[in-house]
Amino acid sequence: MRPATEPLKTQKVYLLLRDKIVTGELKAGARLPSELALADQYNVSRVTVRLALDLLSREDLVEKRVGSGTYVRGSTFAQPVTADLSNAFAHLIEMGRSTAVRLISFEYIEAPEKIAEALDLEDDERVQKSVRVRSFDDVPFSYLTAYVPERIGREYSRDDLAHMALLELMERAGLRAETAWQEVGAVLANPEVAEALGIGVGSPLISMIRVVRGKGERGMEYLHALYRPDRYSLQMNLVRKGSEGSRHWSPTSEGFRSDTATGSRATKTKRVKDK
Amino acid sequence: MRPATEPLKTQKVYLLLRDKIVTGELKAGARLPSELALADQYNVSRVTVRLALDLLSREDLVEKRVGSGTYVRGSTFAQPVTADLSNAFAHLIEMGRSTAVRLISFEYIEAPEKIAEALDLEDDERVQKSVRVRSFDDVPFSYLTAYVPERIGREYSRDDLAHMALLELMERAGLRAETAWQEVGAVLANPEVAEALGIGVGSPLISMIRVVRGKGERGMEYLHALYRPDRYSLQMNLVRKGSEGSRHWSPTSEGFRSDTATGSRATKTKRVKDK
Repeated sequence: MRPATEPLKTQKVYLLLRDKIVTGELKAGARLPSELALADQYNVSRVTVRLALDLLSREDLVEKRVGSGTYVRGSTFAQPVTADLSNAFAHLIEMGRSTAVRLISFEYIEAPEKIAEALDLEDDERVQKSVRVRSFDDVPFSYLTAYVPERIGREYSRDDLAHMALLELMERAGLRAETAWQEVGAVLANPEVAEALGIGVGSPLISMIRVVRGKGERGMEYLHALYRPDRYSLQMNLVRKGSEGSRHWSPTSEGFRSDTATGSRATKTKRVKDK
Repeated sequence: MRPATEPLKTQKVYLLLRDKIVTGELKAGARLPSELALADQYNVSRVTVRLALDLLSREDLVEKRVGSGTYVRGSTFAQPVTADLSNAFAHLIEMGRSTAVRLISFEYIEAPEKIAEALDLEDDERVQKSVRVRSFDDVPFSYLTAYVPERIGREYSRDDLAHMALLELMERAGLRAETAWQEVGAVLANPEVAEALGIGVGSPLISMIRVVRGKGERGMEYLHALYRPDRYSLQMNLVRKGSEGSRHWSPTSEGFRSDTATGSRATKTKRVKDK
């Protein structure tokens, strides 16, 4: 005997409407059908429609006007913050300035198995675990959980980490990062991360694991980064390589930042940035 | 006057428990606290707990045993399919074999504004829009929406697209892809995509936009790809470049596939593959 699955229906209606707004099928300023009409259309209860509209409203995608109905909000979504931010970001990097960091936790713990394995730790070697949230213009965009072997972690303090980039701290200690491997995926925001990033629980996040190695391939850092996709994106230029039958895309670090306001399309690259 | 937001609570409990399972805090085989205990712990109703457990059960993360309780399932999650698949994938690519494609739709339409802009289309130039789902071992992993200028699209048929990779079809017509720009983000699965990929509505997906250009920078393809993160991931090797003060990560196409069974960590790269 299954209970009624209204939460799933709410999510479904929410996503269907969200899709129409994001793709522009429902344009900014458009009035949504009435709750009753939507309930009828999606074959759900009015309460379910109202909950879905609430979710959209929380994301500033729609606006409820008393006595008038629900309207699609201005072009906050149509003009992705991402592109603008990337531009500003690239600029910031060039300026040598930095984003703001909030250190949420800092501790030495027994290394979780997968971390120990990825960093090739000695038996019983402990790790420094830190959690940081990075913001840009006071809006948080990344939630970073970093694991560093204790011998390296002892080279800097909790306070250092609240003020300088991790790799810079390592370099200050004479330890140079040389290579890294990374894997990008997607996850849902859990309540802890959602709160830290100022988004709704269950929002989609870019997930990145990066394993950084120094001299002799020694593991220096295991980073698990979560990014708000509306504030951050991974961009890259590729070139087509290889001969007939084995052609493939190969990433290139080259690329240039466009100086035009609309240059967010295909004319620039954001370099993979320090955490 | 806000309605009760139980759907949000369900999602919250679901994500909190999911997190504990995924991180290993709740190990395979462990018995979850009773519904009553969980309801008390998270300050929600028993119905909400039951719905959250239903969602976990749908994902095969927990198993309800009649009269006994709810248990964390075996290590389906702890051993990510991703890594294994990537291995198998790299192998497939080397073998020159291909994954299976299902063509969902194929039509010529008026170009949406952002597509026209990205591909530098002439005024009124139409586009071929196709939707394909790719599977590996009968499990779908990507949902691909491609836009191609009509003049290029006419070089191949609907049937061709159901059997050959898009870039190969273009190359057959003498059109060579040369560069691309791509942007990676994360989104929630809408009902249509969820059904096509065999996942729950609202599941997280990797989202990728890729704009492919040929000779003279002419736009050839605008691809919007959605990937199931449990079946696909973007992996990359990086090297640290630049001098003091301007160091940054730069992607490299180099990398090798490990032949060891546990070589999924930091020793191989999956080349960015044709769609």
